[in-house]
Amino acid sequence: MTITITAFERSPDRGRGLARDMRVRWALEEAAQPYDVRLLSFKAMKEPAHLALQPFGQIPTYEEGDLALFESGAIILHIAEHHPGLLPDDKNARARAIAWIFAAVSTMEPVIVDRETARFEEGKESWYEEHLAHVERRIRKRLGELSARLGDAEWLDGNFSAGDLQMISVLLRLKGSEILRDYPNLSAYVERGEARTAYRRAFAAQKAVFLAVSAGG
Amino acid sequence: MTITITAFERSPDRGRGLARDMRVRWALEEAAQPYDVRLLSFKAMKEPAHLALQPFGQIPTYEEGDLALFESGAIILHIAEHHPGLLPDDKNARARAIAWIFAAVSTMEPVIVDRETARFEEGKESWYEEHLAHVERRIRKRLGELSARLGDAEWLDGNFSAGDLQMISVLLRLKGSEILRDYPNLSAYVERGEARTAYRRAFAAQKAVFLAVSAGG
Repeated sequence: MTITITAFERSPDRGRGLARDMRVRWALEEAAQPYDVRLLSFKAMKEPAHLALQPFGQIPTYEEGDLALFESGAIILHIAEHHPGLLPDDKNARARAIAWIFAAVSTMEPVIVDRETARFEEGKESWYEEHLAHVERRIRKRLGELSARLGDAEWLDGNFSAGDLQMISVLLRLKGSEILRDYPNLSAYVERGEARTAYRRAFAAQKAVFLAVSAGG
Repeated sequence: MTITITAFERSPDRGRGLARDMRVRWALEEAAQPYDVRLLSFKAMKEPAHLALQPFGQIPTYEEGDLALFESGAIILHIAEHHPGLLPDDKNARARAIAWIFAAVSTMEPVIVDRETARFEEGKESWYEEHLAHVERRIRKRLGELSARLGDAEWLDGNFSAGDLQMISVLLRLKGSEILRDYPNLSAYVERGEARTAYRRAFAAQKAVFLAVSAGG
């Protein structure tokens, strides 16, 4: 059955691979699964046809035969459960890898997203810089805890897993900021993710969408 | 094997059932599984013994034989996968129920937690009320989307599932605020969750901890 995912027609990140379809593309490349992409305008994302697939009007979604899924964590878990390479065979290690998927999207990503949300929605307020200081303190607290756990290890718990894929995708939102550079082991961890063949294929695929749309005006 | 979870020795919510151990207790009651609880002081939560189980120094954790897990979403999913009653048998419906667990903790809960974080950490800033207005607008946007999806249905997707358990637990953080009352179908949905026998057993168990600690001074 053909797998179809959705992505931004014009990604706000201009092809830097930070939109959440990138994570799903990366997981599908790790699993060596071909997929189609349906591009959506911002307008189409809020229309009933898409809201039926994604009640919060976001991307990505995942369709395969009769199955339609949303939430990048759920999609990546689904891919990981159905193809080798993204979850360990040992059942306890498998449960722990899934815990890292959740940690990425529910403990780490919210504080990182808050920084972007503050800039977009509150960036013109006179108190924006003061609020930002609170937000960045919260990000650093979480990064410090994650850095302490990772230590000198290559990945979060044994071999590379869907948990690392999701965590690295979340940390990439800080790429180019000074915040991440203050945690050298996390920076190196992110670079190990970016160096994977599957990551690079996925990155090129989303970048090609941006270049094609730009060329088309 | 005995299941042991961790919880606050002195819950900041004073036994109102809003700490995240409540979700795990509820899932274990739905699954009819007995469990032990290890209570932790705020100090103990930041010590190496607990950080080895929970790298971000939070509760709950879940221990069963050789398995140690953190993240309420991962714990609830683990319970749901190993006991009947919390995930549908149909594999597509099962994947969708898991997507709702993720939606609860990664799309809905972050905006709700932001309101609490703002009060605790930025509540004395001169601009707190202005920031709060932004936060509450973001909460209402998500509640409006969830309300539209739920409509007149009893649960989010067919029978009660671990996705509903997690979503209702997240929405309960708004209990007593006017925000939730503006969405009558969500308020009724939360009340259906609270009316379940398993919820009431779990609530009584965490309340008993608070009362015992209070009585002990």
